[in-house]
Amino acid sequence: MHKGLIVQKFGGTSVADIQRIQKAAARVVSYKRKGYSLVVVVSALGDTTDELTALAGKINSMPAEREMDMLLSTGEQISAALLAMGIQKFGAKAISFTGGQVGIITDTSHTRARIIKINTDKIKEELNQGKIVIVAGFQGITLNQDITTLGRGGSDLTAVALAKVLDAEACEIYTDVEGVYTADPRIEPQARKIEYITYDEMLEMASAGAQVMQSRSIEVAKKFNIPIHVRSGFNYKTGTIITREVKRMEEVVVSGITLNRNETKITICNVPDRPGVAAKIFKRLAAAGINVDMIVQNVSHLRQTDISFTVKKADTLKVSRLIRGVAKDIKASDVLQDEDISRVSIIGVGMKSHPGVAATMFAALAENKINIEMISTSDISIYCIIKKRCAEKAVRVLHKRFGLAK
Amino acid sequence: MHKGLIVQKFGGTSVADIQRIQKAAARVVSYKRKGYSLVVVVSALGDTTDELTALAGKINSMPAEREMDMLLSTGEQISAALLAMGIQKFGAKAISFTGGQVGIITDTSHTRARIIKINTDKIKEELNQGKIVIVAGFQGITLNQDITTLGRGGSDLTAVALAKVLDAEACEIYTDVEGVYTADPRIEPQARKIEYITYDEMLEMASAGAQVMQSRSIEVAKKFNIPIHVRSGFNYKTGTIITREVKRMEEVVVSGITLNRNETKITICNVPDRPGVAAKIFKRLAAAGINVDMIVQNVSHLRQTDISFTVKKADTLKVSRLIRGVAKDIKASDVLQDEDISRVSIIGVGMKSHPGVAATMFAALAENKINIEMISTSDISIYCIIKKRCAEKAVRVLHKRFGLAK
Repeated sequence: MHKGLIVQKFGGTSVADIQRIQKAAARVVSYKRKGYSLVVVVSALGDTTDELTALAGKINSMPAEREMDMLLSTGEQISAALLAMGIQKFGAKAISFTGGQVGIITDTSHTRARIIKINTDKIKEELNQGKIVIVAGFQGITLNQDITTLGRGGSDLTAVALAKVLDAEACEIYTDVEGVYTADPRIEPQARKIEYITYDEMLEMASAGAQVMQSRSIEVAKKFNIPIHVRSGFNYKTGTIITREVKRMEEVVVSGITLNRNETKITICNVPDRPGVAAKIFKRLAAAGINVDMIVQNVSHLRQTDISFTVKKADTLKVSRLIRGVAKDIKASDVLQDEDISRVSIIGVGMKSHPGVAATMFAALAENKINIEMISTSDISIYCIIKKRCAEKAVRVLHKRFGLAK
Repeated sequence: MHKGLIVQKFGGTSVADIQRIQKAAARVVSYKRKGYSLVVVVSALGDTTDELTALAGKINSMPAEREMDMLLSTGEQISAALLAMGIQKFGAKAISFTGGQVGIITDTSHTRARIIKINTDKIKEELNQGKIVIVAGFQGITLNQDITTLGRGGSDLTAVALAKVLDAEACEIYTDVEGVYTADPRIEPQARKIEYITYDEMLEMASAGAQVMQSRSIEVAKKFNIPIHVRSGFNYKTGTIITREVKRMEEVVVSGITLNRNETKITICNVPDRPGVAAKIFKRLAAAGINVDMIVQNVSHLRQTDISFTVKKADTLKVSRLIRGVAKDIKASDVLQDEDISRVSIIGVGMKSHPGVAATMFAALAENKINIEMISTSDISIYCIIKKRCAEKAVRVLHKRFGLAK
């Protein structure tokens, strides 16, 4: 019985040790025996990437990015070879490839390369011979034959991109959680696995702190309309399907609550309200490679305003130093920084057609004496910055209020 | 001041940890600053290759050789990238390559591939830009872009082959000993570092148990007349130069004594003395991939003879089983195996023109009550199999008798 092609991606935790590699191999082989063609993308074993990065850091605190890619790409090459061996042990045919061998051509932006094109001849040739094709994720090669890596979440991107160019029937992302949840189950025990979620909601989830998948690969999946099945590498339960449109029996207003405790709030006080001032601030940050998350600026009083934004905690020092310089230039009075904050967000495409969602959120928080310090909204989400100590309570309150419990 | 090109090869112990990689980097840079062009070949860090092999063995006891190559080649790729970073730290320009990237094309015999050709364009281009070129040793790529490895001692081979095709002025092999010694200094404290040795002597040394370099790379060096400088990665002393001809002030008869404790002696008793019997035996071993070392057959009595040979200790069980089968077929009476033996050898091109060397050797052993169980000779060496417990004494006795002491 000949079925279609499935791309399966196993994350680092799913191939963290011998037993898990064997488990992953068994799963791949079980799909092969059902008649599917399989392309399997693997991440590096467990903490390999972090270990190699630490090793490099001890030799050179500013290693050349080209050499970092040369170094880090070995992690996925190792797991690809080991998984192939594991599959062969079950008597199935398998062959492993590096990103370069399989024809994943990227630009030359080492450590964060972008895929330019994928030559599928080699994969198709091996699939036609009945082989399971294992591809080292996270990597590619430039036209000049230099090895590149695709940046954080790169293996997901490899899987989604291969699913696209090979016209796969499904793209399965195996991870250490059973799917996407209405809230982090460690915080809200009543959290429920979401069966279907849209690309847009998932993108909001990712940017608001859910760590299931990186935005980049979801964007690519959305662009090419490739359904993604996020599921556990440790059992055979159905996980969460990420897709373009979700037909739900009952209309759901809020799909999930996320919490991000990894940000710092920066406020520039008494910024003169002149055209071009905000541009000046954020251009400076962009030039330094800083990603800014929420930005809030309110109406001004006496031709002055406060501008607040959040950045990753790791960037706090760098940003603070930069912004103090800018503040002086633009004659702002002061710069405040607050690491004691969390961002709690509600996300759902249903919001578009349901007025009053924001009001419900703010009321629920107020009733529980949780003060809101900053608010920002998009089409399908509302973010609130609150004190860190209230964060978990806020998640539980909102989860209940929006009826997300099991 | 522009000088010639040097190929330097750093073995696993010379890049075993961060400190040693930094030391190797410092050395490479010091040569660059003297005006040399440099191509540096690296082995995998310390025990990486053994660790990866063990990992593979746990997943599949008979891993596909293609996948083993995919796996093991990462070891050298890692050290190449790290060494490049180490060199860059000193402010010198460096770039690392895999064997495949640098154009080392091999046949398809995975795990023991042979180099077919080396495309030097890429290396030359980078050298012309003033860069130090780091090449991952031990590996190549097939015309079909599959990664291959060159087998034991493969990194030495990479270095020698690159020295040849790049027309290098010197090929330096950095290792954990200071050169080739007249005997193992752990056994004979009076052992002396040999300044110059011929390819042929070195080949005999390697086959007789000295572990400084593998035969294969010495053979290639001999074929293309590439002088090799074997030296320590831990100091700047001159080591041993391996070359075609050695002009010595005084004629040296014996250059070195080696000891090999890693062999088993197998004897097939009462073999019918018919043409084709020996062929039958050794064909069977060859077919099983067993390397046989010494073979001794003496004159026959009553149309029967004994055939003895030595094999690597690790192969004992396999050989023993095979040979018992053959013995039955050829109607030999018995098979004996003796693991309690050692091979002591004296090696020197001077023997050719000095009669009586063998007699001197046998007399020295006899005077010290060391019984000889097997004797075999070549043009420039004499091997004796003796009891293991006499082995170290034999080395010291012969070292003294042939005047090799400091």
